Amino acid sequence: MGYNEQQIEGRNAVTEALRAGKSVDKVFLLSGAGEHGMEPLLRELKKHPETKVSYVKKERLDQMSETGRHQGVIAMTAAYDYASVEDMLELAKERSEPPFLILLDGIEDPHNLGAIIRTANLCGAHGVVIRQDRSVGLTAAAARASAGAINYTPVAKVKNISRTIEELKKKGLWFVCADMGGELMYDLDLKGPIGLVIGNEGRGVSELVRKSCDMTASIPMRGDIDSLNASVACGVLAYEILRQRFTMLK
Amino acid sequence: MGYNEQQIEGRNAVTEALRAGKSVDKVFLLSGAGEHGMEPLLRELKKHPETKVSYVKKERLDQMSETGRHQGVIAMTAAYDYASVEDMLELAKERSEPPFLILLDGIEDPHNLGAIIRTANLCGAHGVVIRQDRSVGLTAAAARASAGAINYTPVAKVKNISRTIEELKKKGLWFVCADMGGELMYDLDLKGPIGLVIGNEGRGVSELVRKSCDMTASIPMRGDIDSLNASVACGVLAYEILRQRFTMLK
Repeated sequence: MGYNEQQIEGRNAVTEALRAGKSVDKVFLLSGAGEHGMEPLLRELKKHPETKVSYVKKERLDQMSETGRHQGVIAMTAAYDYASVEDMLELAKERSEPPFLILLDGIEDPHNLGAIIRTANLCGAHGVVIRQDRSVGLTAAAARASAGAINYTPVAKVKNISRTIEELKKKGLWFVCADMGGELMYDLDLKGPIGLVIGNEGRGVSELVRKSCDMTASIPMRGDIDSLNASVACGVLAYEILRQRFTMLK
Repeated sequence: MGYNEQQIEGRNAVTEALRAGKSVDKVFLLSGAGEHGMEPLLRELKKHPETKVSYVKKERLDQMSETGRHQGVIAMTAAYDYASVEDMLELAKERSEPPFLILLDGIEDPHNLGAIIRTANLCGAHGVVIRQDRSVGLTAAAARASAGAINYTPVAKVKNISRTIEELKKKGLWFVCADMGGELMYDLDLKGPIGLVIGNEGRGVSELVRKSCDMTASIPMRGDIDSLNASVACGVLAYEILRQRFTMLK
């Protein structure tokens, strides 16, 4: 399988990619350049708040350029297209299951993202929601680490995880985040429509997101260090959710 | 924290490292060279069957050499020292717990090994046993991925996983391996002295090792792809073992 991120260079090419609805993760623009000739691109970028814009020096663009003709613009597209949170709720409905989403509050390592998409697929979750900022996207490395799961499990990118949580709460979902000092996961009721929130590899779940959650779950810790690898913690909690759903079916 | 693999070059230096009991993962020897001057090293290597020997061309050694004076020998030492399986049984005894070991039948990715050592530490396992061949050792990358767990959780390297299983069975341990088509993990009794066996990332558990195990456990799979990431699968099963032990204590 080939999972290729694509690099698109030049004003027209990038503008057209955005217009065509391609998932553009990031655009590098020449900093300090006048906007002459850039207007169509900047207009298009305004319509795509999910695309991150970084202003960089000419030397950086020259280094990155594969064609030698970047015209002050280089875009990185996702290896895969993003879905919407609505798509995930639709999927749950189709399967007549209570929604089960996994939300990532700033996972940075593509191997962790890939492993989590793989877990989401196998534990029966309906999708993975990632954050736009300070977070890895659907890069080629993440796609490869997902071992094909990315072809089946929708991934959505949102601007603000806690706002997404608030919106989904109105649709009946409950939210549980993984954090030390929470209630032991076995003692929580995780059977209904649920969103599982996993924090950043180093910093954990951000304060605002934790406050938006209904419950904080802790995985039993009997060792000397602080925390599991983020994708392992996600797997353990996702399977506790599945176990509780299973037991309910018995 | 600095986890440094060390590269040792030259006949005497490598011979002395082996004599001093340093954990030498691998020795690269010049292929086709006469054994003149190599005898002390070759004698010492015979006493260390855990050290893998590879015969390579002069160009390869020249490329690898950091000193330019390899004399036909370059050794790679572990970033950390290995423990023995006995150490792990001692640790269980000290804690008055039934032994709980994690055995890896050929994990190749250092990030997976590190994440598994981290999981072993936190789920209360007494050690991780790895295979000598076709398997990653305690490299600097594995040490880093363990997030410090390598300082607390013993790791042993054995020549033959299935022989180790047979020996430990005589000491009362039961063995469960992770594989598709096994019994659902919730339905197995995983409370006693136990060894959890995790297979290679691509090939899974080898035939011989599977036959040595008492039970095959399967993780429920509700998706489209074949398997979880190896370190995630290990985490889910290790925590199922911990859950059963917990429940027993209630």
